[in-house]
Amino acid sequence: MIIQLENDINTSQKEAIKSRIEGIHYMITEVNTQRNNYLVCVGKADFDIRSIGNLPGIRDIHRVSDDYKLVSSKWKTRHTVIDLGDGIRIGNGEFTIMAGPCSIESEEQIARTIEHLKANNISIMRGGVYKPRSSPYSFRGLGIDGLKLWHDMASKAGIKIISEVMQVSQIEPMYDYVDIFQVGARNTQNFNLLDELGKVDKPVLIKRGISGTVDELLYSAEYVFSAGNEDLMLCERGIRTYERSSRNTLDINAIPILKEKSHLPVVADPSHAIGIRRHVTDVALACVIAGADGVIFETHEEPALAYSDGQQTLDFGQSEKLIKMMRSTYDLREEFAI
Amino acid sequence: MIIQLENDINTSQKEAIKSRIEGIHYMITEVNTQRNNYLVCVGKADFDIRSIGNLPGIRDIHRVSDDYKLVSSKWKTRHTVIDLGDGIRIGNGEFTIMAGPCSIESEEQIARTIEHLKANNISIMRGGVYKPRSSPYSFRGLGIDGLKLWHDMASKAGIKIISEVMQVSQIEPMYDYVDIFQVGARNTQNFNLLDELGKVDKPVLIKRGISGTVDELLYSAEYVFSAGNEDLMLCERGIRTYERSSRNTLDINAIPILKEKSHLPVVADPSHAIGIRRHVTDVALACVIAGADGVIFETHEEPALAYSDGQQTLDFGQSEKLIKMMRSTYDLREEFAI
Amino acid sequence: MIIQLENDINTSQKEAIKSRIEGIHYMITEVNTQRNNYLVCVGKADFDIRSIGNLPGIRDIHRVSDDYKLVSSKWKTRHTVIDLGDGIRIGNGEFTIMAGPCSIESEEQIARTIEHLKANNISIMRGGVYKPRSSPYSFRGLGIDGLKLWHDMASKAGIKIISEVMQVSQIEPMYDYVDIFQVGARNTQNFNLLDELGKVDKPVLIKRGISGTVDELLYSAEYVFSAGNEDLMLCERGIRTYERSSRNTLDINAIPILKEKSHLPVVADPSHAIGIRRHVTDVALACVIAGADGVIFETHEEPALAYSDGQQTLDFGQSEKLIKMMRSTYDLREEFAI
Amino acid sequence: MIIQLENDINTSQKEAIKSRIEGIHYMITEVNTQRNNYLVCVGKADFDIRSIGNLPGIRDIHRVSDDYKLVSSKWKTRHTVIDLGDGIRIGNGEFTIMAGPCSIESEEQIARTIEHLKANNISIMRGGVYKPRSSPYSFRGLGIDGLKLWHDMASKAGIKIISEVMQVSQIEPMYDYVDIFQVGARNTQNFNLLDELGKVDKPVLIKRGISGTVDELLYSAEYVFSAGNEDLMLCERGIRTYERSSRNTLDINAIPILKEKSHLPVVADPSHAIGIRRHVTDVALACVIAGADGVIFETHEEPALAYSDGQQTLDFGQSEKLIKMMRSTYDLREEFAI
Repeated sequence: MIIQLENDINTSQKEAIKSRIEGIHYMITEVNTQRNNYLVCVGKADFDIRSIGNLPGIRDIHRVSDDYKLVSSKWKTRHTVIDLGDGIRIGNGEFTIMAGPCSIESEEQIARTIEHLKANNISIMRGGVYKPRSSPYSFRGLGIDGLKLWHDMASKAGIKIISEVMQVSQIEPMYDYVDIFQVGARNTQNFNLLDELGKVDKPVLIKRGISGTVDELLYSAEYVFSAGNEDLMLCERGIRTYERSSRNTLDINAIPILKEKSHLPVVADPSHAIGIRRHVTDVALACVIAGADGVIFETHEEPALAYSDGQQTLDFGQSEKLIKMMRSTYDLREEFAI
Repeated sequence: MIIQLENDINTSQKEAIKSRIEGIHYMITEVNTQRNNYLVCVGKADFDIRSIGNLPGIRDIHRVSDDYKLVSSKWKTRHTVIDLGDGIRIGNGEFTIMAGPCSIESEEQIARTIEHLKANNISIMRGGVYKPRSSPYSFRGLGIDGLKLWHDMASKAGIKIISEVMQVSQIEPMYDYVDIFQVGARNTQNFNLLDELGKVDKPVLIKRGISGTVDELLYSAEYVFSAGNEDLMLCERGIRTYERSSRNTLDINAIPILKEKSHLPVVADPSHAIGIRRHVTDVALACVIAGADGVIFETHEEPALAYSDGQQTLDFGQSEKLIKMMRSTYDLREEFAI
Repeated sequence: MIIQLENDINTSQKEAIKSRIEGIHYMITEVNTQRNNYLVCVGKADFDIRSIGNLPGIRDIHRVSDDYKLVSSKWKTRHTVIDLGDGIRIGNGEFTIMAGPCSIESEEQIARTIEHLKANNISIMRGGVYKPRSSPYSFRGLGIDGLKLWHDMASKAGIKIISEVMQVSQIEPMYDYVDIFQVGARNTQNFNLLDELGKVDKPVLIKRGISGTVDELLYSAEYVFSAGNEDLMLCERGIRTYERSSRNTLDINAIPILKEKSHLPVVADPSHAIGIRRHVTDVALACVIAGADGVIFETHEEPALAYSDGQQTLDFGQSEKLIKMMRSTYDLREEFAI
Repeated sequence: MIIQLENDINTSQKEAIKSRIEGIHYMITEVNTQRNNYLVCVGKADFDIRSIGNLPGIRDIHRVSDDYKLVSSKWKTRHTVIDLGDGIRIGNGEFTIMAGPCSIESEEQIARTIEHLKANNISIMRGGVYKPRSSPYSFRGLGIDGLKLWHDMASKAGIKIISEVMQVSQIEPMYDYVDIFQVGARNTQNFNLLDELGKVDKPVLIKRGISGTVDELLYSAEYVFSAGNEDLMLCERGIRTYERSSRNTLDINAIPILKEKSHLPVVADPSHAIGIRRHVTDVALACVIAGADGVIFETHEEPALAYSDGQQTLDFGQSEKLIKMMRSTYDLREEFAI
């Protein structure tokens, strides 16, 4: 059960509500986000929801049978829209493209990528400065200095930044220089990181775990939301299966399923999902027509020279074509929805 | 190596070619399909391909590094087109829809389905008369009598039939009453069945195995082709993974990968792939935009009363909408290809 | 519900029982095996089991909540013992070893293998004469002539034969020359083959499917049992997962789970499960201590020269050591059970 | 290539070595553990290893073709033995049992568990004070206060403690109260945590990821080793597959494979691997006979009352039996090795 409280609720009203809920032996988690205050109540007893809903100080009350509560579409039927400022919104009728290199490498590389994005009317640039790598001997990213340089150049160009945060201690230093925190596939169940991102007032994109289920992804979002941050996106990026002809198996089913189960925007990452440059376009378009609110993909002026993930990175010519095709595909999708 | 022989090759020419190939210790499989004659040669020695290619009686010669040979796009760059007669073709620029119930149930059901297909300009009807079921106590289909009734009604209406063949002994009795033999996901590696279907002069659609790889699907097609039948289609129908929110995981990556590796038409089955009626449409459209040459899906006038698979079967209203959306999506795909 | 009938039940008694069951709207499948006669009844209504159990002609009656019935340990608590004659039994207190090459290759090879088995007191020899191969260009086995030669030599030596049957039409020609029919991992859900093996009065070993579940394996056994054959063994042989350091992933959990769910003997195939010669022993011993009733493994005098599966085949020296270790391990297991 | 340096190497010698290696364009990582100093060198050029090996200051030099280096058995053929003090060693001829509850719950619970361990001659107690939970509304452990209480009681009894560390900031507060840090399955690729644990002079047990490969587990250990900590154990705890009859699929193959690929001790966790109390014993014994150096399992005086994982937790009677059986099984394994 989710109880949304009035913003001007007073202490005695709140105590009365909590006492009534404790009376039916429900566990209460108080959730105060930047926008709203909730009581998330978990328990087993059956009761008349109206007898609680009528108490003063309650704006709205919902039963939620899912094990995740706050991210469920069962209580919040309106889709979440994330506002990045400067007229840039994600979700519910906007189609968002985020593009850029796997790793931030140099001033020159940043400059050329920004130029490419501006020419194609893209407002959000992706790039890694902290890189999770299987081997300790691989390139691990430029770190905070790379991020500062990037932020300086991007903000002048009016471009927003999404970048991966790998651990709690990086949140504070990164905070001033990113517009969206990305949680990578290896950290989807790093619960401490999720908890801390709940205290931040910037949006978070959560990638599905390497072999994460749809429900686990929703639970991970529930962690962030219940710790205080409502501005969340879910990202399908392929799952690990036995199939070896592609890097991962993009779970196209997950897109409509996530859209139905949750009110959060759903973004797809076709680059990691298939891992083969010449097939990224087909898979990206599939995600758009299946209902994704956005696509995040890797592009680089010279993929063959990229520090990482070159084999799945589009060059700028391929990127430009993909962007146009995705927009046409999204328009067709919108027509269907009418 | 694939050697395509001249149709008018004489015996001594053929012997000379075979003797030369045996000289480099390659194993030869002679393949005579309804249309062409090939020598498929497997071995390890390096040699000058021109020294063989110049022999009389050879129309064309190709090195094929893939382990599957005849179904590879490495030697046959033109896409295969399957001609069902009456102007109905599958592959390479035609978009094919096959629809119908999971199981053929009754005369009434057949009649209503045919009516629905005709109204939507669909020429191929799917339906099972032999049903593979996990439990021996489940409905196993109407069998050959159901097929005869169906064929009688469908042929009058100008509708072609695709239906699953489960074992060798069913091929002959089914032969006169189907236009396409379907090999189900549990029989993708039933090599005896594949061998026998190679001797038949009707097209075969092969479903990917329940946990089959892309390469295994191509090998299964190689069985049929090398036994004599070139008219083959490959069908992606979802694979088994750990994810439980859908019946199977549709491997959208497989569609562009199969299209690249093979010259055979690729068909998608969204119904089995996701297994949830209200999401079939999104997944079907994804397959179309990703490059599928066709889609096969389940529809029934009253899905709730279907003998099998009702939970993933569209009613006629949903089916009609899907058909229109798929055609618009295919048109957009074609525009991209220009 | 399973109703075991008296062997001397008369027609009017049986009709009375069936009429009573139809009265509660249960579907009845009449199962007549070589040993017993059953009615398997599937339905949803609640009823007093005693009101049926008291009818004349019924020896025993059991509720079985599992979806598989006849193979369930819920109704038959005594473990099935399979009697191959000549004092050779499988299951419930006997530990059975079956060994031999992947493929039967030659008279010389058969002779040396039999010698090796006799020296180690092994009574059952495995070997393939029909080989399921992914590629149509691979060696497919010596066929029926190889089997006849093998049977001639084995029967003189007092050795029993287990060999894979790939299709219905092979059952009859193989019948006189095998002691156990093996259903391979690619045919676990070849329901026609299972049905036909139900009519045979020789034991059947069913391998788990390449990505088959424990329940699907039990259902496949239910097919054979319900078609009339009670002499069944289940075989764990590794499942397909994402892990690439071994050929398959042996599901050691499945051994105690199958032993609990079913009364049928459980056999393990470590050779296919790991696919790496030097590790077969460790995995084989694990299966024995976990409760397997038998182990089937591949051995060859010169594995490097084997026509197939050489990389997972033990030489005779390794085989001899493994046999001794397995027997010691089984003895320890028996001590624990006291 | 791994170069083990002499402990008394001087600066100019080291510089000479590094300069020679840079001359062949290899990347050098300097690794100083609590015991030894290494240069790990990664590159592609071919060279004469003796021309480097003869330089002064080098104790030993090895080519290592694996992508992981320091944890590979290719350079260190002697098995690692971890010394916990007080005569307690892990690895190479010692069989180690670690047992205890999923979560530390209360003083009473700790006391009864310690009593049980002492009675059975077990020296290492497991238990969680920080619990990774899919849902933010589940019990997350007693935290550092629980750990202090536990440590106080355990050290008096001469019992060592292994407990999970979930994030970098927990390392320092936990340091004084644990004997082994455990990295959980959701943190196997939390590279920052691994890096930091490399700086600690206490042993680390690394669980395989939920869908981690054998190689990824070795890479994760390489992170910790290359950051300075040699005292590592690898733990097989089951992987995620499609099979639903058990919680995870214990990958028994991984035990001999890890033992061969690495010199580190290998521990098995049967409790999480199967997740069903009555089957834990069979799976545990399988791991012992397959070559595990130790087993970690869950036990609780009253499993039904445990705060977490009760369904897979043994009661003390079952635990006692398992301990005896594991020791007998290990003895048999040792006999085989002679």
